[in-house]
Amino acid sequence: MKAPERLRVVLYGLGQIGLETAKVVLARRDIELVGAIDVDPKKLQRDVADLSGLSRPSGVRVSDRPAEVLHVTRPHVAILTTSSRFKDALPQIKQCVDARAHVVSSCEELLLPHVRYAAQAKDLDRYAKGMGVAVLGTGVNPGFIMDTMALAATAPCLEVKSVAVERVVNASTRRPNLQQKVGAGMTPARFRKGVKNSEIGHVGLLESTHLVAEGLGWTLERVDETIKPVLATSRVKTPHVTVQAGQVAGIHHVCRGFVNGKETVTLDLQMYVGAKKPFDRIAVKGRPDVTLLFENGVAGDEATIAMLVAMVPAMPKLEPGLRTMADCPVPHFRAGN
Amino acid sequence: MKAPERLRVVLYGLGQIGLETAKVVLARRDIELVGAIDVDPKKLQRDVADLSGLSRPSGVRVSDRPAEVLHVTRPHVAILTTSSRFKDALPQIKQCVDARAHVVSSCEELLLPHVRYAAQAKDLDRYAKGMGVAVLGTGVNPGFIMDTMALAATAPCLEVKSVAVERVVNASTRRPNLQQKVGAGMTPARFRKGVKNSEIGHVGLLESTHLVAEGLGWTLERVDETIKPVLATSRVKTPHVTVQAGQVAGIHHVCRGFVNGKETVTLDLQMYVGAKKPFDRIAVKGRPDVTLLFENGVAGDEATIAMLVAMVPAMPKLEPGLRTMADCPVPHFRAGN
Repeated sequence: MKAPERLRVVLYGLGQIGLETAKVVLARRDIELVGAIDVDPKKLQRDVADLSGLSRPSGVRVSDRPAEVLHVTRPHVAILTTSSRFKDALPQIKQCVDARAHVVSSCEELLLPHVRYAAQAKDLDRYAKGMGVAVLGTGVNPGFIMDTMALAATAPCLEVKSVAVERVVNASTRRPNLQQKVGAGMTPARFRKGVKNSEIGHVGLLESTHLVAEGLGWTLERVDETIKPVLATSRVKTPHVTVQAGQVAGIHHVCRGFVNGKETVTLDLQMYVGAKKPFDRIAVKGRPDVTLLFENGVAGDEATIAMLVAMVPAMPKLEPGLRTMADCPVPHFRAGN
Repeated sequence: MKAPERLRVVLYGLGQIGLETAKVVLARRDIELVGAIDVDPKKLQRDVADLSGLSRPSGVRVSDRPAEVLHVTRPHVAILTTSSRFKDALPQIKQCVDARAHVVSSCEELLLPHVRYAAQAKDLDRYAKGMGVAVLGTGVNPGFIMDTMALAATAPCLEVKSVAVERVVNASTRRPNLQQKVGAGMTPARFRKGVKNSEIGHVGLLESTHLVAEGLGWTLERVDETIKPVLATSRVKTPHVTVQAGQVAGIHHVCRGFVNGKETVTLDLQMYVGAKKPFDRIAVKGRPDVTLLFENGVAGDEATIAMLVAMVPAMPKLEPGLRTMADCPVPHFRAGN
């Protein structure tokens, strides 16, 4: 299937990520924004450009009727940024597939949904295949640093024994939503309760762990997961939160995947406000060893938007069904005009 | 087109890279070696495993009749490792395409053959499309470090202004053939003559420069290319060559690509015997800046073999025609058994 000249895109979800994505899409000549969907009554009927802070109107107004928008505008691709959870995103993904739109989404669990939802993922795969469209979860993490790039780092290897990724993110530079998600400003007791209730923790880390393993041809017999608080050693102030010394600055979330009793995939993530030296480091043990360092790390929110838009032109070329980043062409920036 | 369960592979070329590739292919359960082609009379009728130094026979004997081998064994994929030059490889590629075999090759100029051979590349593309097979040039450099990974490093960016890659390779650890190619042991005068005669210089650097630019959506108006000797400051001895102080230790080859008068893609490669701190560093200027460092670099010959084998399963899934690494799924290691 050939990609058409100009890809028509609908934005499904106009939160912070969705609105920033709108700006990028509106600046591209090879992608045309044809529709926008959100349930927020304050956004209804507003021009997307206006909501995004652009001065020139886009002519696309926000609707709360997804089926109508999708069937009237017939997008090639829907960019879905509504939820981190597969179960919440699933009915929306199905609406897009109903309209024969490919779906690229920042939904973290969609990176590899069969990890938590085997039956529903299988059904969605079958349905998308039947409708001839591809469904993909991507972003910076999950979607790039700790999985796609971890796989790419193994390309020069004749043998791989283990892959370990360490990522330190300064949450001070991230959106308020993310600072809440990592527990910044909580007491340690409140944090532990949040972990128990699954409110705290990096959604997608488990999926990244399995994506790396599956890509390498390994089946993990188990994944040990730990989520601990990073405590502030001195007062940290961001535009959104102030953390006192001893309070929670963020999370330290680790997944360790095992094959034949050996730890083979380790994803170690720290996200906290006030992190002084953010970085990402991928260490492959094998023949040869490969270590790949993103000096100063990769800024998260911009990168997620960049990944979503980067995958748009790839979508019509993918085999239909539920796809992963391991099926996709090497992601990269492309000048749109 | 679905990939079949087990991919039949013919090795076309059994030099050092070809024979090492044979070992890797013979160790994989998802790939079956069905044929081997070389013109060297000393290799004729020898078992490939034996030539590769393996004790268990493969049952595949070397033939100097390519058309016969290809038509009798009907491989899904031919791995071609005969030449760095597109013009030399072209008749062999055509033989493979005649037999409807996909071709993955370490031929450096095949990375992006239209750069030097626009008409022949167009013809080959048309012919491969007609026969329903894909043709791909890959390797570690060109093919991975200075192009594919340079593109991947831009994936988190909303804007890219320039990409610069610096690669320092210790040629002491490389095959004798490569040490000759970089001029190790030559006098500076002999080196300069070699550059003039196109005997010296890293084949593929220009192609990598254009591959990065094309991937980013840029058309380079010109590429400035310089090839200078790296002189030994003290005596360097490898198993294959001894270089006296003042003699040539290797090359420093730089390509600078320009868009609208600005240098936007810079590939800076040093390959010399005795290099103490090999590394690869990709620096993207944009929004945000991204810098990616391969600590200690990536060993070349093993990596080229790994890349060739890594791309084999991808070949039947590519669109037919002349393809580039930018069209391919993210390359990675895969356990074969």
